[in-house]
Amino acid sequence: MPELRRDPVTSRWIIIAVERAKRPDDFRAVPSVPKAKECPFCEGFERATPPEIAAVRTSGGRNEPGWRVRVVPNKFPALMIEGDLDRRGEGMYDIMNGVGAHEVIIESPKHLLSLTEMAEESLREVFRMYRERLLDLRRDSRMVYGLLFKNVGEAAGASLEHTHSQLIVTPIVPLRVQTEIDRSKLYFEYRGRCLLCDMVKQELQSGIRLVCETQQFVSFEPFASRFPFETHIIPKRHHSHFESIDEGAMGELASILRTTMLRIEKAVNHPPYNYLIHTSPLNTPPLEHYHWHFEIIPRITRVAGFEWGTGFYINPVPPEHAAQYLREVRIP
Amino acid sequence: MPELRRDPVTSRWIIIAVERAKRPDDFRAVPSVPKAKECPFCEGFERATPPEIAAVRTSGGRNEPGWRVRVVPNKFPALMIEGDLDRRGEGMYDIMNGVGAHEVIIESPKHLLSLTEMAEESLREVFRMYRERLLDLRRDSRMVYGLLFKNVGEAAGASLEHTHSQLIVTPIVPLRVQTEIDRSKLYFEYRGRCLLCDMVKQELQSGIRLVCETQQFVSFEPFASRFPFETHIIPKRHHSHFESIDEGAMGELASILRTTMLRIEKAVNHPPYNYLIHTSPLNTPPLEHYHWHFEIIPRITRVAGFEWGTGFYINPVPPEHAAQYLREVRIP
Repeated sequence: MPELRRDPVTSRWIIIAVERAKRPDDFRAVPSVPKAKECPFCEGFERATPPEIAAVRTSGGRNEPGWRVRVVPNKFPALMIEGDLDRRGEGMYDIMNGVGAHEVIIESPKHLLSLTEMAEESLREVFRMYRERLLDLRRDSRMVYGLLFKNVGEAAGASLEHTHSQLIVTPIVPLRVQTEIDRSKLYFEYRGRCLLCDMVKQELQSGIRLVCETQQFVSFEPFASRFPFETHIIPKRHHSHFESIDEGAMGELASILRTTMLRIEKAVNHPPYNYLIHTSPLNTPPLEHYHWHFEIIPRITRVAGFEWGTGFYINPVPPEHAAQYLREVRIP
Repeated sequence: MPELRRDPVTSRWIIIAVERAKRPDDFRAVPSVPKAKECPFCEGFERATPPEIAAVRTSGGRNEPGWRVRVVPNKFPALMIEGDLDRRGEGMYDIMNGVGAHEVIIESPKHLLSLTEMAEESLREVFRMYRERLLDLRRDSRMVYGLLFKNVGEAAGASLEHTHSQLIVTPIVPLRVQTEIDRSKLYFEYRGRCLLCDMVKQELQSGIRLVCETQQFVSFEPFASRFPFETHIIPKRHHSHFESIDEGAMGELASILRTTMLRIEKAVNHPPYNYLIHTSPLNTPPLEHYHWHFEIIPRITRVAGFEWGTGFYINPVPPEHAAQYLREVRIP
């Protein structure tokens, strides 16, 4: 059973996931990403993954070919679905059991390397699956927060190249999300408006950090971007929970994410990247003060001692320049 | 002039350092670390760096050979020493000028790649220089927080391989440090004791996470280690400010850091790593509730979408295993 441990100085929780453990000597070399031939995410290799949790299918039965999107448990889960939290102490330290969920969303039966190779309609099916998984897991009261994310490229932590995303559900609200919610609440109490709604308005008005937009979404470089070409996508209208997204919005999200990633891939030559969705905790009603959004983080600068020590980031590219570059780059 | 910008959602400050800027297309390839022949940190190449700020010398004058430790301004500074903060807004966003200091401490005139190749006495001279730079800079009231850190290896953000460390002085207390200070203060108010003093006692008593110790210092794997082989070194007795360190303690610190790094380098085959010193803000009197310490972060696992999104870390190696491994590894 994985263990959640809290650092008393920073309040930061970490997960000790022995199921993912290697012997210490295995750290001598970072393993490289296996190539196509042996890919367990490809259609026809369904037996190479743990049994599937959900799928969108054209044909076939469970764990058989014929799927278009497929969800399986992570083979090396960071958190486990069985058991209770059992919060306890060890002297001054806090521990609880690593209860939660860790799923992989395989986005295509084909061995595609990027979501930009997918049709918008296929991407929309991925988002529909994101929504379905959150709605399913929120019925379990131990499941408090669902983080959907994607790692692309070895430098961004991917261990398989076949296009996929992941969902980790934690039994507590993560510190980083709680900070965003707390800050947004403070703003709401002070101004009576949602912080991110105001930010969308300011960005649309100034336009200097915009990448692209649809009727319902805007894609922009944040004012305080941590990294060159960091890009956020956010619904223009207020929505606190990703899983309340409707069909029309999913189609637009597929379109704006695909266009944004095409621009980033062209501008920075297919960089390794992460994306993640910040949304409200599963067990909360609609929140007036929090607003879900996508964060795309190209991994082209290194995090070093200064960043670890301070929480500051040094960004050599002003987001206004990055935005202009992304707007002007020619895409198919 | 670099610019400090605050993200309104997270309160995180970032530095837009255009002086370090490249054209967006330069991000297409991450440059590799230049090799020995052209190293600007080697003795005899003093003209290749900006004019020196301080040095420990056996012979020679300013910017001449004959030094043992040498401090120069960073050629691509993240913050600049001239000017005022000029705090201002841009709509809902907060900005100030990037005032501060960014120095490089060249630890040896020889092209050494690791501090473990240095004699303890030379390392002690490096720590003496750390102290001297902090004491010098704290006389300027704009200099609020001094972070000493080291990047080793390309994956850890180093751009030169010659053994060196850096000092960045910021005009505000960084969020991460402020969090540690706030949490420690809360603990002090509740229990009347320093959180880190209590932690040292618990670690010495249990012994399961210890790496090594001297009379005045202990080196251990933190209970909630973010990364495999993350190691902290901390004075056993309470000291809030690194710059109040005395000669005896500097000698012991040189010894325990060298031994700890020898063990890590042997155990994990010379990994890329960062270290940093967390200490109290320059402008504070001695604090009862905060306790300076070293954090050593080997960079052998990747930070990915889950970590960015939550602030959680997934560590596949329990610190108790890592500590045992480090204790048992044979070093010269």
